[in-house]
Amino acid sequence: MQHKARKFSTRAKAVTTTAALAAVAAGVTGAVSASADTTDTTTAAAPAAVTAVKDKAVTTTDHLTVQAATDAAQAALKAAQKEGQRVSVAVVDRNGNTLVTLRGDGAGPQAYESAVKKAYTAVAWNTPTSRLTERLKSAPTLKDIPGTLFLAGGAPVTHDDTPIAGVGVAGAPSGDLDEKFAQAGVAAIGNRR
Amino acid sequence: MQHKARKFSTRAKAVTTTAALAAVAAGVTGAVSASADTTDTTTAAAPAAVTAVKDKAVTTTDHLTVQAATDAAQAALKAAQKEGQRVSVAVVDRNGNTLVTLRGDGAGPQAYESAVKKAYTAVAWNTPTSRLTERLKSAPTLKDIPGTLFLAGGAPVTHDDTPIAGVGVAGAPSGDLDEKFAQAGVAAIGNRR
Amino acid sequence: MQHKARKFSTRAKAVTTTAALAAVAAGVTGAVSASADTTDTTTAAAPAAVTAVKDKAVTTTDHLTVQAATDAAQAALKAAQKEGQRVSVAVVDRNGNTLVTLRGDGAGPQAYESAVKKAYTAVAWNTPTSRLTERLKSAPTLKDIPGTLFLAGGAPVTHDDTPIAGVGVAGAPSGDLDEKFAQAGVAAIGNRR
Amino acid sequence: MQHKARKFSTRAKAVTTTAALAAVAAGVTGAVSASADTTDTTTAAAPAAVTAVKDKAVTTTDHLTVQAATDAAQAALKAAQKEGQRVSVAVVDRNGNTLVTLRGDGAGPQAYESAVKKAYTAVAWNTPTSRLTERLKSAPTLKDIPGTLFLAGGAPVTHDDTPIAGVGVAGAPSGDLDEKFAQAGVAAIGNRR
Amino acid sequence: MQHKARKFSTRAKAVTTTAALAAVAAGVTGAVSASADTTDTTTAAAPAAVTAVKDKAVTTTDHLTVQAATDAAQAALKAAQKEGQRVSVAVVDRNGNTLVTLRGDGAGPQAYESAVKKAYTAVAWNTPTSRLTERLKSAPTLKDIPGTLFLAGGAPVTHDDTPIAGVGVAGAPSGDLDEKFAQAGVAAIGNRR
Amino acid sequence: MQHKARKFSTRAKAVTTTAALAAVAAGVTGAVSASADTTDTTTAAAPAAVTAVKDKAVTTTDHLTVQAATDAAQAALKAAQKEGQRVSVAVVDRNGNTLVTLRGDGAGPQAYESAVKKAYTAVAWNTPTSRLTERLKSAPTLKDIPGTLFLAGGAPVTHDDTPIAGVGVAGAPSGDLDEKFAQAGVAAIGNRR
Amino acid sequence: MQHKARKFSTRAKAVTTTAALAAVAAGVTGAVSASADTTDTTTAAAPAAVTAVKDKAVTTTDHLTVQAATDAAQAALKAAQKEGQRVSVAVVDRNGNTLVTLRGDGAGPQAYESAVKKAYTAVAWNTPTSRLTERLKSAPTLKDIPGTLFLAGGAPVTHDDTPIAGVGVAGAPSGDLDEKFAQAGVAAIGNRR
Amino acid sequence: MQHKARKFSTRAKAVTTTAALAAVAAGVTGAVSASADTTDTTTAAAPAAVTAVKDKAVTTTDHLTVQAATDAAQAALKAAQKEGQRVSVAVVDRNGNTLVTLRGDGAGPQAYESAVKKAYTAVAWNTPTSRLTERLKSAPTLKDIPGTLFLAGGAPVTHDDTPIAGVGVAGAPSGDLDEKFAQAGVAAIGNRR
Repeated sequence: MQHKARKFSTRAKAVTTTAALAAVAAGVTGAVSASADTTDTTTAAAPAAVTAVKDKAVTTTDHLTVQAATDAAQAALKAAQKEGQRVSVAVVDRNGNTLVTLRGDGAGPQAYESAVKKAYTAVAWNTPTSRLTERLKSAPTLKDIPGTLFLAGGAPVTHDDTPIAGVGVAGAPSGDLDEKFAQAGVAAIGNRR
Repeated sequence: MQHKARKFSTRAKAVTTTAALAAVAAGVTGAVSASADTTDTTTAAAPAAVTAVKDKAVTTTDHLTVQAATDAAQAALKAAQKEGQRVSVAVVDRNGNTLVTLRGDGAGPQAYESAVKKAYTAVAWNTPTSRLTERLKSAPTLKDIPGTLFLAGGAPVTHDDTPIAGVGVAGAPSGDLDEKFAQAGVAAIGNRR
Repeated sequence: MQHKARKFSTRAKAVTTTAALAAVAAGVTGAVSASADTTDTTTAAAPAAVTAVKDKAVTTTDHLTVQAATDAAQAALKAAQKEGQRVSVAVVDRNGNTLVTLRGDGAGPQAYESAVKKAYTAVAWNTPTSRLTERLKSAPTLKDIPGTLFLAGGAPVTHDDTPIAGVGVAGAPSGDLDEKFAQAGVAAIGNRR
Repeated sequence: MQHKARKFSTRAKAVTTTAALAAVAAGVTGAVSASADTTDTTTAAAPAAVTAVKDKAVTTTDHLTVQAATDAAQAALKAAQKEGQRVSVAVVDRNGNTLVTLRGDGAGPQAYESAVKKAYTAVAWNTPTSRLTERLKSAPTLKDIPGTLFLAGGAPVTHDDTPIAGVGVAGAPSGDLDEKFAQAGVAAIGNRR
Repeated sequence: MQHKARKFSTRAKAVTTTAALAAVAAGVTGAVSASADTTDTTTAAAPAAVTAVKDKAVTTTDHLTVQAATDAAQAALKAAQKEGQRVSVAVVDRNGNTLVTLRGDGAGPQAYESAVKKAYTAVAWNTPTSRLTERLKSAPTLKDIPGTLFLAGGAPVTHDDTPIAGVGVAGAPSGDLDEKFAQAGVAAIGNRR
Repeated sequence: MQHKARKFSTRAKAVTTTAALAAVAAGVTGAVSASADTTDTTTAAAPAAVTAVKDKAVTTTDHLTVQAATDAAQAALKAAQKEGQRVSVAVVDRNGNTLVTLRGDGAGPQAYESAVKKAYTAVAWNTPTSRLTERLKSAPTLKDIPGTLFLAGGAPVTHDDTPIAGVGVAGAPSGDLDEKFAQAGVAAIGNRR
Repeated sequence: MQHKARKFSTRAKAVTTTAALAAVAAGVTGAVSASADTTDTTTAAAPAAVTAVKDKAVTTTDHLTVQAATDAAQAALKAAQKEGQRVSVAVVDRNGNTLVTLRGDGAGPQAYESAVKKAYTAVAWNTPTSRLTERLKSAPTLKDIPGTLFLAGGAPVTHDDTPIAGVGVAGAPSGDLDEKFAQAGVAAIGNRR
Repeated sequence: MQHKARKFSTRAKAVTTTAALAAVAAGVTGAVSASADTTDTTTAAAPAAVTAVKDKAVTTTDHLTVQAATDAAQAALKAAQKEGQRVSVAVVDRNGNTLVTLRGDGAGPQAYESAVKKAYTAVAWNTPTSRLTERLKSAPTLKDIPGTLFLAGGAPVTHDDTPIAGVGVAGAPSGDLDEKFAQAGVAAIGNRR
């Protein structure tokens, strides 16, 4: 992740979710869901509830957009289909959250979760998982870290020399094939160096 | 799912994964992955290992292709973005397996898993989740079934009058909005009746 | 899984669950359960809720019927009992879902879940698990994939040269015995080639 | 469970698994599995390892045989199929262990685990789950006990006035239907009173 | 487990829990708990709910009484305390259920769950866990079976030449010490042969 | 918990585990277990590895001894047996760790984990769980806190006016009975006020 | 989260982890750990492994620094201690990841995880959890979303009108007290508006 | 842990939580939270509910204060930052409970849980985790104990020659670096010997 100094705007962004909250207050059954971003500034009675933090308390990080992540996943899937391979694909961000998953037609049941774990492992160490398996020779317990899978098929995505995501592929008969497809996914959204 | 009589072809599909198996036999480090479909007919020594079942033992089911599922998920996400809402989207098939997930930019952290559970619930009962919440009045413990979320935002997908998938959306300030986006996802791959 | 072009019938299958829904609407306490397939077309007010997808969005897969899966499991159990062995048996489909489990009389407590995992592993790689243990020599981290157990005792079931299920047996004093019983289960539903 | 005084035989049951252990000792790769009952009395060097407990330290309990449990599950499934309902079925013993599961063709994905939990709940309270939902009026937190599902569809099995198993069914459009099928399962193995 | 023919008494055991059920019916808040054995024969309206199974559908198994299991656990703990070792102890039955646990004063946090898993492993294979670690040489994936721990410190308990429980100890500086204490626990309830 | 000023002794407690460590160093297969308290001061080369913290960084808490916890659990079990009730019992300390569990003969399968959760809940709020269920009227989501069960049957144990443990009982036909037995357990180790 | 256009620097950030990688290559036992950010550009042979994504594929989000999160947590804890209350505290970011946890001296065992869930809930809905409990009146199943706890004691943190974190407190005798302490934590890092 | 004889004060500590309980009784919505230490002596009607245990039933243990644990964690983090390393830090007590966690800015997603497990492992064996990896040579299954991670980066904290906590660090490119930072954390609260 990147940690740069940044200017913050001082404008007061309009609160767009008031209507939604009103709907809730009206007691409409089933109207409220897993809502987000509902900055509630409607009542003066609870000012402490909305406290903006000082600028120096904040840092920024880079993320793949969901569109870019979808592009990468689809490119990986297409690369596999082109070679007649049935795989599943996942893209995981640097925080370890899964951004996109695609369960490929006819892929084995184990491929879905394998793809997620390969993507996670690639972004965690910023290294293709095929190389990470070599590291196990000197530190075999690395593979006991929760969430990881030290098996070829994961490729990292970087921006400004920092890891921001991983693409994982599983289901082809060899990990090298999986990783080739994962790299095709990365290439679809990247600038080669 | 549909259960129809079906003719099975008698052709012997070419086994395409022999090369991959050979690679494994060669002991290439890291070369084997979460492989699928590696019908192994290379050795006569273990004929029992590959036994094809009789036709009457088999039934067929319909599934969304991964492409159709991705189209539905992206259409739902776009419908939300058009209204300035930040959501996550999921498509789950009739077996309960997640086909596609998209974590939308800026969606709340709870939206991702909520979307999966809404999609699951919609396909399980073949009913939009907004209506299922009404059923809780007479059977409140329905919501204790593992994997479900009885909250508006899930919409079923049918084919030949049979449920084959569910689309789930979460993160908008109301469940009704979430479900509107989910329906947009279903519509993108469907024929209106 | 098989992915073939398929003609879809255009007939409108009668909705058989209307009565059940009515029962729910009547508020009968405890009357609603984990219901399935309740295609709700009773109300014109929510047409978007039931959208049938276009044919090209759909693919079909083959499954063992529950009857065939039960036959396989019972045959495996009987084969074990004939040799005085106490085992548990499981049948898992290509989506990774468990179809049938049988906890054999007097089998060790670890046998039940072991059987499920062996069946899962056999169908995932379409290979008897006794052979898969050999693959660990070149790719030892394969066994870290969730849901798998690389121990003899699992046998794949194929149809039209495609894996559709796995039979797993555990509890005998050797994995070779377990796998022999699993193969007996596969044979009971299969056509030898 | 029953707790009766019992005479124990003094005969020394022949140890039948010695061969298996020998196979292990021979180092046959992959030959050892999830073995059970391998009473090892071959070596005098470790007498402490095999200590038989005194008779007064032991009590006996009754269990359904796996055959009876399978009969019950299949009868329940058939009762549902006869009415055109797609359900999954489970049989759980008094220790809470699942004895048999059957994932019915076309049953919803939520039905499988629901059936297990209904069976568990029925045997735990020795009461049909349709009645247990009524108990929630006076003790609503009963349903928070792990492993339970207070939804109609589970029926207890008794022997000598003691609960020994539960049959659970899920997937029909109403819990009353589910429970009717579960009772059909119980009836198939029972003596009506 | 033992599977013997058995005569079943025909007496009708008095239903002792009627009063409790009445209390529930009276709607006493908080009065109902995780109740067991409440054979409900009070209402003639639901005869199907209580169906006794036929005798041939039933088998019996032997279990340690909770008193014997507690005696074993306490004897193991005392053996450790006598040597100044701080350990935790567990007793697990042949169904894999934990009967008794004792978290020893000052034992490490990892000892509690380790003791349970050692006891489970010992009863599953009916072999002291110190010997089972040797089996891993020929079948290293045995240790991937859920619930097991292949580490010295577990000892099986047998009755009539059948495994009925396991005692596990963990926390001493060596597994051999742990197993010595576990054997002391077994000896406390056993007849040496 | 109590937080009192305390004098710390300055004596150097003899390291008693050196022999065990030596055994490890000798490479005895299987000799190392889940060891505890192995204060390693044998090598001068790694002084940083053993750093004793300053006195002001430390506070003390009171715990039931394992003997007292066992006494309480057994007293609770006996109280239940005296009334012909089949229950399971647990004792949990103020840190939330389970100290002792007893699975009573013939108790329902749900009773074991219920007892643990009741004990946890009682010590967490230092209140009998029968009363805590009343609190749910004003704060119904209290029961969503992980690890808790708001059902009668748990009783707190205090020392110096501070909660130090909880005793939980489950399996009797009513929660009031369960709690009566739990209180009998507490009484067995306590001084009535 | 904020989604703003951003200029990316073109400088090549020096790779600082080369030495560490070399250490790994040297095969130092135990030298490799859960490493991060090891941008591997040392070998020209695998250019595909490091692909930087195009700028338009990237978005940025704001996060609390770990220092700010720690300040907030400590301020909340101190506020509680000042009133003689024993609580645990957590800070969770907008991705749902826990940034900081503090288990307060003498706080109940349930407080730690409760604090994490309250913080998660507050940042997910950008609303104090005391107000979210009111929303349950119209949408009671909101509380079934995994990871949430709808109990007073969580307060959101915003930056540029966007939720970036939540502070959760648990353990005081009332949720209102918990939330007062949480707000004190937010205030410590914020600019009041 | 230490087990010393101790005098108990006989003073009656004032019950400070009566007000809070009164608030609950008043039915204030949302007023009750995950409360602790609410010794309820207000009602004479339930004397059994508060039973103080006899002194001989109690032992005491030493714990790091939350302030000391925070100091250690922050010192470890600062040591890493000084060398430009991005890590996460955790402190775990001798009961296995996590006291403090700090997710460092820019640390890999795997570092957070790795730090917790390293700290747990260090305090469980009272040994730096770098040395524990060596023990795996003679007892390789030690690493299968739940909660552990045998990877350099964990350091124990002792008091009066007894382990009371562990500090874990993860995220640096080598485990030796991680452990150096962990030791810096320990040193910050300790007296060197």
